[in-house]
Amino acid sequence: MSAAPADRVRIVLVGTTHPGNIGATARAMKTMCLSRLWLAAPHCKINADAVARASGATGVLDDARCVETLDAALSGCSLVFGTTARPRTLDWPALTPRAAAEKAAVAAAAGSDVAFVFGPERTGLSNDDLDRCHYRVTIPANPRYSSLNLAAAVQVLSYEIMLALNDPAAIESEAVDTVPAGADDMERFYTHLEEVLTASGFLDPANPRHLMRRLRRLFNRARPDQNEINILRGMLRALEPRD
Amino acid sequence: MSAAPADRVRIVLVGTTHPGNIGATARAMKTMCLSRLWLAAPHCKINADAVARASGATGVLDDARCVETLDAALSGCSLVFGTTARPRTLDWPALTPRAAAEKAAVAAAAGSDVAFVFGPERTGLSNDDLDRCHYRVTIPANPRYSSLNLAAAVQVLSYEIMLALNDPAAIESEAVDTVPAGADDMERFYTHLEEVLTASGFLDPANPRHLMRRLRRLFNRARPDQNEINILRGMLRALEPRD
Repeated sequence: MSAAPADRVRIVLVGTTHPGNIGATARAMKTMCLSRLWLAAPHCKINADAVARASGATGVLDDARCVETLDAALSGCSLVFGTTARPRTLDWPALTPRAAAEKAAVAAAAGSDVAFVFGPERTGLSNDDLDRCHYRVTIPANPRYSSLNLAAAVQVLSYEIMLALNDPAAIESEAVDTVPAGADDMERFYTHLEEVLTASGFLDPANPRHLMRRLRRLFNRARPDQNEINILRGMLRALEPRD
Repeated sequence: MSAAPADRVRIVLVGTTHPGNIGATARAMKTMCLSRLWLAAPHCKINADAVARASGATGVLDDARCVETLDAALSGCSLVFGTTARPRTLDWPALTPRAAAEKAAVAAAAGSDVAFVFGPERTGLSNDDLDRCHYRVTIPANPRYSSLNLAAAVQVLSYEIMLALNDPAAIESEAVDTVPAGADDMERFYTHLEEVLTASGFLDPANPRHLMRRLRRLFNRARPDQNEINILRGMLRALEPRD
């Protein structure tokens, strides 16, 4: 609980392909007082290009955590925002950068770890990645050309995050009474739920019809706390079909 | 007077040294519906680097006006903002990007031409350049590392300009909202849930321990829509203990 709120906000880049964008992201973060950079399954190395584009922010690059999966990068986070330019077929709770930054600042000030996730340059986040996120964030943009450079998108989000973190009045006015369950516990819950629904015959693995995605969307919206996740897990154990 | 307000806002780069930054500026502008780029006394040419970093925004580069002086780039403008990271010895009317964007939007909507001026990468705008500006704009930043990349600074300002030019109320309310299920459906769901949990032994009617209240709190927070309630009811039917 003793970390500064800005240190509770991590920027997670998934499957980044250009080292220069990683460096430019580090620079964008540092200008806005953010320092916790995570690289999930990057498709490139931190090389001289990255260092050049980081300018004086090489410390952020040096401290970057490189992990193999998005789940690993979200470890310990209880609030996850997925950035996307594209409209999705499934309606998702979509926030503006400003609204997302305000939620993030409130959570970080209350001692929760928060992540903003950015997808690969060409494709953006997959639906699987977005399944890990509580909210989608879309930067308002030209509908005919909405493709911000990766580091430019990080700059806009980081700018809004810094403004929100520096507005203590707004943070004070939103009381957070419980601490939401972490991403790991949520994943264990979804795995358990999927097992029980498959065993009961409700979920047909041959024809899943986005069922788990819809359920994730529903439960992520509620942001269960640890106690509630324990109740849900207990329910699943009681409801497991027995032969 | 017939130009769209976004076409009344020009981005002026003074003495830029890196072609890549000019290309990235073009891209940042286009994502935010701006297209009028002016280069005053550039120290580089628009080359392949610039085109590469412009990504799909080469049209903005093609239409860029290259002039020899800042005065020429400001021709016809009645409101000029000079961006600077550094505190200046002379006190200057300093605005946040948001406040500047609002002034710019009001002026542009009223038919005035407006300019945002960005200095060379290493030095920023000179005092002579700032003498041409009505206002100084400073992007709030890390006091120990306030040096945004040139195109990143253009991205933040362009983002605020686009928000100001559009109806902010409409932008903030973009969140996707579905119609939540009605109270009757929610009650039928809770009744069904209670039956299944009692039959499974998870809920002991003799010692209910506020279980249903906790579950109501959780599901009410998610505000399920009709389709989601149908899924939950289907799950309950599949999970009903059978003798």
